[in-house]
Amino acid sequence: MRILIPLFLLPVLAFAASQSGPSVPTPINVMPLPASVQTQPGRLKLDGSFTVATGGYSGVRLQAAILRLQQRLEGRTGIALPLGVAATSGTPAALTITVNAGGGLYPKLGDDESYSLEIAGARASLSANTEWGALRGMETLLQLVAGDSSGYYFPFVSIQDKPRFPWRGLMIDVGRHFQPVEVIKRNIAGMAAVKMNVFHWHLSDDQGFRIESKRYPKLHEMGSAGLYYTQGQVREVVAYAADRGVRVIPEFDMPGHTGAWMVGHPELASAPGLYARELRWGIFDPTMDPTREETFQFLDGLIGEMAALFPDEYFHIGGDENNGKQWQANPQIQEFMRAHGYHTTAELQTYFNQRVLQIVQKHGKKMVGWDEILTPDLPKDAVVQSWRGYKSLDQAAREGYKTIWSTTYYLDHMGPAEYHYLSDPLPVDSKLTAEQASHIVGGEVCAWAEFLSPENIDSRIWPRTAAIAERFWSPQNVTDIADMYRRLDAVTVWLEQDGTLQLSSTDKMLRQTSGTAELGPLGVLAKITSPEGVGVREELTRSSAPSTQLTPLVRLTDAVAPDPPYRRQFAALVEQLLSDAPRFAASSDALTKTFQQWRDMGPGFAAMAAAAPVLRDGSSRVVQLQKLGSAGLEALNYLHSGTTPPDDWKAAQLALIKQAETPDMSLLKLPWMRSYRTLILAAAGVGELKGANPKEWKQKIADEAARQEPTQKYTW
Amino acid sequence: MRILIPLFLLPVLAFAASQSGPSVPTPINVMPLPASVQTQPGRLKLDGSFTVATGGYSGVRLQAAILRLQQRLEGRTGIALPLGVAATSGTPAALTITVNAGGGLYPKLGDDESYSLEIAGARASLSANTEWGALRGMETLLQLVAGDSSGYYFPFVSIQDKPRFPWRGLMIDVGRHFQPVEVIKRNIAGMAAVKMNVFHWHLSDDQGFRIESKRYPKLHEMGSAGLYYTQGQVREVVAYAADRGVRVIPEFDMPGHTGAWMVGHPELASAPGLYARELRWGIFDPTMDPTREETFQFLDGLIGEMAALFPDEYFHIGGDENNGKQWQANPQIQEFMRAHGYHTTAELQTYFNQRVLQIVQKHGKKMVGWDEILTPDLPKDAVVQSWRGYKSLDQAAREGYKTIWSTTYYLDHMGPAEYHYLSDPLPVDSKLTAEQASHIVGGEVCAWAEFLSPENIDSRIWPRTAAIAERFWSPQNVTDIADMYRRLDAVTVWLEQDGTLQLSSTDKMLRQTSGTAELGPLGVLAKITSPEGVGVREELTRSSAPSTQLTPLVRLTDAVAPDPPYRRQFAALVEQLLSDAPRFAASSDALTKTFQQWRDMGPGFAAMAAAAPVLRDGSSRVVQLQKLGSAGLEALNYLHSGTTPPDDWKAAQLALIKQAETPDMSLLKLPWMRSYRTLILAAAGVGELKGANPKEWKQKIADEAARQEPTQKYTW
Repeated sequence: MRILIPLFLLPVLAFAASQSGPSVPTPINVMPLPASVQTQPGRLKLDGSFTVATGGYSGVRLQAAILRLQQRLEGRTGIALPLGVAATSGTPAALTITVNAGGGLYPKLGDDESYSLEIAGARASLSANTEWGALRGMETLLQLVAGDSSGYYFPFVSIQDKPRFPWRGLMIDVGRHFQPVEVIKRNIAGMAAVKMNVFHWHLSDDQGFRIESKRYPKLHEMGSAGLYYTQGQVREVVAYAADRGVRVIPEFDMPGHTGAWMVGHPELASAPGLYARELRWGIFDPTMDPTREETFQFLDGLIGEMAALFPDEYFHIGGDENNGKQWQANPQIQEFMRAHGYHTTAELQTYFNQRVLQIVQKHGKKMVGWDEILTPDLPKDAVVQSWRGYKSLDQAAREGYKTIWSTTYYLDHMGPAEYHYLSDPLPVDSKLTAEQASHIVGGEVCAWAEFLSPENIDSRIWPRTAAIAERFWSPQNVTDIADMYRRLDAVTVWLEQDGTLQLSSTDKMLRQTSGTAELGPLGVLAKITSPEGVGVREELTRSSAPSTQLTPLVRLTDAVAPDPPYRRQFAALVEQLLSDAPRFAASSDALTKTFQQWRDMGPGFAAMAAAAPVLRDGSSRVVQLQKLGSAGLEALNYLHSGTTPPDDWKAAQLALIKQAETPDMSLLKLPWMRSYRTLILAAAGVGELKGANPKEWKQKIADEAARQEPTQKYTW
Repeated sequence: MRILIPLFLLPVLAFAASQSGPSVPTPINVMPLPASVQTQPGRLKLDGSFTVATGGYSGVRLQAAILRLQQRLEGRTGIALPLGVAATSGTPAALTITVNAGGGLYPKLGDDESYSLEIAGARASLSANTEWGALRGMETLLQLVAGDSSGYYFPFVSIQDKPRFPWRGLMIDVGRHFQPVEVIKRNIAGMAAVKMNVFHWHLSDDQGFRIESKRYPKLHEMGSAGLYYTQGQVREVVAYAADRGVRVIPEFDMPGHTGAWMVGHPELASAPGLYARELRWGIFDPTMDPTREETFQFLDGLIGEMAALFPDEYFHIGGDENNGKQWQANPQIQEFMRAHGYHTTAELQTYFNQRVLQIVQKHGKKMVGWDEILTPDLPKDAVVQSWRGYKSLDQAAREGYKTIWSTTYYLDHMGPAEYHYLSDPLPVDSKLTAEQASHIVGGEVCAWAEFLSPENIDSRIWPRTAAIAERFWSPQNVTDIADMYRRLDAVTVWLEQDGTLQLSSTDKMLRQTSGTAELGPLGVLAKITSPEGVGVREELTRSSAPSTQLTPLVRLTDAVAPDPPYRRQFAALVEQLLSDAPRFAASSDALTKTFQQWRDMGPGFAAMAAAAPVLRDGSSRVVQLQKLGSAGLEALNYLHSGTTPPDDWKAAQLALIKQAETPDMSLLKLPWMRSYRTLILAAAGVGELKGANPKEWKQKIADEAARQEPTQKYTW
């Protein structure tokens, strides 16, 4: 499922890219933004008398959710709240949650998740048709808590809310790198906090078969190196997710990506021999033999066993990236193809899919697959997961299939949140009819795991996934990037309360490798860099030091976070500086300090890298940062003095920038380089400011910076 | 188990208090320091060819420990190592671990934990009589990894090591605040990393009965609010601990501290009525009725059930703090006492203890109890845990009882590591004979849980417990405070790799309450403050806002760490400055920056506290810090200019210092105040420097600062 289409570099000056969202009278920090929000002057106090009652339906799940809500409120405010559901007699409760009906044992596609939240006077009222809606509304309520000199409160607000798409998923690949149950749970908690509702569990791949099979124990015993989920753990995860309104869909990728199955069951393969679990990354040959009836008998047994473990009505069979080599090399299979009139391995895979589909249906499930499954005769209740672009998405929708969008939600590109955020399963310019468009039921974020460890997975998933969650939930026209980031900065802190580690993992990993709690220049480097995407990483390391499943993921590039807030902070500083032309006093002190810090970080970093050789990775970027710091200080001087630098200064700095923008073995990006280039160009062009309109001058500089942006393509 | 004896304020200038330790040719970062270390020039390279083989005994436990060792090495160095045990044929392994014999199913008191580690030439050799010794030696090896420009390596070293005391424990109270299994596990991992070997699990108290009893399910069902360990979880913890050479000793505190038992079993109490789980802190009345045979039948059932769950030969029955009130108020019990000739409730408790002892023995266990159990007729195989001072410890030892020391290892005093470190179970000046002294088998750190949450428990336990672990393990004369802190700063980072959270929990908690990832002045405040001890906290809050089990533990005082490194860093800055008299240039810039930061932190902090009222706690200290910052800058000016300040300046600053040293409702200490006072006194006395010997002048200032130190006593 590597993305093969080019992704162009994105606009990085977030504040310049904002578009207008819906009218919101006062800023609220809720993410995803509700469908409709009206705020009113006034507030409901949150203090030790804040009771919660239920009206209508009230079951164990709702009561547990209320207790979690109260504990999370306590954790944020320090207020000891009356825990549990208040008696309905006596004083009316501060918050009443009215649910018309329970949601059944498990959430399912199409559940009513709408709710309304009214906070006015001395009471708040959360109403929903189902428990699921109430869960969503509680997350909104929690995000509304505010404080000021008079204490904590909820602002008066009237919210009518419901999701735009019913399928709002996150896929985690545990085949390539296993993730312990606690990692899965905390990520499901994070999903629920931003109203996502599908956890897609990629349970098997060439590198690992990660779930206990009682029927075919050799699958996990021989295919996982001991790293698999017991069926008890799976039940625990399914129940944990259901309590939070999250469906769990297992994926058993087949007929390719099945190398780990064949360690214990070589008879499933299309070529004879002994199979070992694959430790490398890529697309490999092992493929199930679709010409043997025993293959389908086996799958009938396994799917039957797994269908009973996962209550969701959907079952993902993968179906992607079969390279066809084993099929082409096997005379019997070739003979089978001839006999059935199949000219391509794709046609044979269609046959395989049809057979698997029958098995999936026999066990009461509907099928989901990657977009390769979209072939003639695919039954209409299958769901197509599009990972290769709008063409397959639109085609599936036109043909009447439910379809979900993942192409632009691959987190391992390490792109910024805004890139994912602006990418819509159903873009404004979609050519689909309304009826066709209705088949696009949502999307899924994909966390492929070549470079994910339990230590760094959270910083790869969060907070970017929260921005995508808003794309899935909120109205199509909610696209204000600056406002998104403002709320994302708040939401990432809240997510941490639910257990995710994205705000602490970078420093923790760097402490482990540096052996010190005083990170100094290493901490500076970590704050201002981001990891290269999987494509660049694999390309650069393929020949010299190819990564495998056994490679420790503790390099700098493994530790630093994608889309660091620093990119926006630095952009804002440069923006302020240039907006203050010709004085250039605004934010000048902050930039001076920053550049001095870069200029001077060399010796300290070198000392740390000497004692901890794994850190040497960062040396190339540190050398560049020292130069970028010095040049930044020079640029500030030119701007302040209004002096045009010597002729070769600009060329020298642009050469330096180009070098710093080129991927290297550090696998670290300096993601604020457009802002830096703008600053350098401004200094070089400060002479043109004389007599010019400062605004026009600034725009000219910005345009030149944009033109010089590398049009580098990432291809996977 | 609150400590009632006074603890005097300690010397806080760590570097001034150092005593000489054993001769160590080159500094190594190992903690606890081994009994004997010889280093040699040379090194053994650690790279991708570093294999590990076993010689002699090799079982599953040893193999698992080797794999953990390798994974921890990988995590610190990024080197992909050949995992598992290498084949013995072929090239000799880089490290050979030779164990004479397995250690049995579980560790036990008196196990041979000695080992020797020889690193020389191209090989390392770890030898031990038992697996337990090998486990200890692997922790030493892991701490020896170093790096430089040529890569990672182990220095050539010859280590002969064994523990000074065989009982090196940590008690965690899960009665007052429950701790999930993962908290227990990561703390056991931390214990093993510093060679501790007893986890004392305080499982029941007035506030909670925390373990599932299948025989008497009302105990946990009604006495825990759902927060208890299942027996499956207990087995898991016991196995996890055994794999790390850690014994698990359960404590069921009785006959007092049993309020939570009586919620489900009121018939156990000495007064009739309905019992509710106690939510407050203190000593309460509910006490078992020792006059009813049914009480002992019940205990026989429970202890029998629990004895089977915990394989260790010792079983802790508590026995402390029975206030005797229920016994005095119950006519039947009074009659029983008269009939048996008991004049005091203490005598009745002796009777109770005797009966419980018989039950404990019947189930194959030896008894441990708090020092109240030390009464005539206590059988000689009981272990006395001394929490009330050396008197009871020495008395127990003289009478031939095995005894363990805890009095000075109460973490909730929030004292510095050096205080605990310098306190010895068997002090140099002990009056005991060698034979008597041999009964002192070790000590236990105590983590009482009035103010412990899963979020902050690690920062209360670690790294201070690592210093105490060294006291338990290393030779008596290892008492160099500066060297201890140097190694403690390294060990706390390593502990984090094993899962403890002490280095990240403060900021994480502050993010949750402040709602922002950019902590700014709040982060500054957190770095330079420490929490008041439990005594001060309870005294200050008793009337206005008494804490209970339901109080959210998210105040600043709950988040900041005891004994912050900042105390030592600030002391070093002041020391450098004054050692540079009369220039006062050394560290002057750093102090200026620090004081400016304090002086200017007010508005930023106020803005954060306005939006997050729970932070207002810190306001009083922030106001003082602003003044301390300004005065610090003035002091630097006086020193630099050699000008004596006006007469009232010194008095004003000392008044400010006194205020800042007085506990207040912020419950935050400024633990570097002695150094600050020294600076102020130096500035006030700068006039006397003219013509004086700077060293003598500095000593005079230091003496005056010491005299002015508050002689505040903490009493609990």
